[in-house]
Amino acid sequence: MSIGEKPYIKELFNKTEPYLTASPTLNVNGDIASSKTTRESKEQVPCITDITQYEVVEDHNISQLNHLQHLTPKIYVLNVYIIDVEIVYDQEIRIKVVNELPMVGKYVPPVDILEVYITGKEEVQNFLGDEALTMDIFTPLLNETSRLRVFQRPSKTDRIIRWSPIECTIQELRLQRMFRLRDTIKVEETLSLTQ
Amino acid sequence: MSIGEKPYIKELFNKTEPYLTASPTLNVNGDIASSKTTRESKEQVPCITDITQYEVVEDHNISQLNHLQHLTPKIYVLNVYIIDVEIVYDQEIRIKVVNELPMVGKYVPPVDILEVYITGKEEVQNFLGDEALTMDIFTPLLNETSRLRVFQRPSKTDRIIRWSPIECTIQELRLQRMFRLRDTIKVEETLSLTQ
Repeated sequence: MSIGEKPYIKELFNKTEPYLTASPTLNVNGDIASSKTTRESKEQVPCITDITQYEVVEDHNISQLNHLQHLTPKIYVLNVYIIDVEIVYDQEIRIKVVNELPMVGKYVPPVDILEVYITGKEEVQNFLGDEALTMDIFTPLLNETSRLRVFQRPSKTDRIIRWSPIECTIQELRLQRMFRLRDTIKVEETLSLTQ
Repeated sequence: MSIGEKPYIKELFNKTEPYLTASPTLNVNGDIASSKTTRESKEQVPCITDITQYEVVEDHNISQLNHLQHLTPKIYVLNVYIIDVEIVYDQEIRIKVVNELPMVGKYVPPVDILEVYITGKEEVQNFLGDEALTMDIFTPLLNETSRLRVFQRPSKTDRIIRWSPIECTIQELRLQRMFRLRDTIKVEETLSLTQ
């Protein structure tokens, strides 16, 4: 499927600028206190420059994504569970997602966890809209399914691949949850009527 | 090999207390501003309680470690390259290590990266000794081989396995590097003398 066929991809084109923002975490390649210089040099995160080259792939396996050794011009649409969220210096949100929740007492091996980064003030702002950045906004989404569209970006060190969402806001994630809950109630009502 | 045979394991026994320290990062399960309560409850990181049960395993493959779905009573001795270091809220050091550096222009897939956590003020202090926590102390260690001993701990969410080093200090890592450099010079001198 060509990316141009999806309406949200067109919107994405106007939202690539935030991806130019540097990562604000303290890192061997930069310091948050002196981020200005690094922002202009090696800390720049590349944006998607040629959107028509991107292919949309549905329902991908996280373990396979964690094995990728190169940047692919693909946007992966994932149905995942959010199992952990972390806020770093109010300038980065890291969301850990899995394809399936582990059984009680079991652990998810790192290979099955995809860490998705919302990086830089602008991206965080885009994600939040009018909301304040607190852990409370994520709590209802924990262990719930979410639909995310993610793509790869090289990290600041240019050796590590980082995953980021596109067209992702807290409002959208909340809406997804609301619709799921509504559908569940509808199914339950239908079942109770037919019984 | 039984863990009791290694001298550093005996020292470890006196150093388990820091592992009781809570993780200080902002997380869905806790807030740094209100960490006192969470420290005392679910944010506690377990220590190694019965050291004699731990087996020491040499030279392990990181990809295999990232596939582990359960906590194993093993201490893995790794010869690795440090490719990235991150300081989070001055209370956590996260070190990304790989078995082999990627070729120029290539990326390391997440499956081949082990993230090692030094978590909590006490652990960070143990790691630092008299040093101040700045990125500068890590820069010389980047892309250099280091010998780390790591073991698993469950994360605060109890679903994710986190790796932590034991008996690891900045001074030790620096010494390792110094000895390697000295050995390299010795070999070079020997070579030039024999030529």
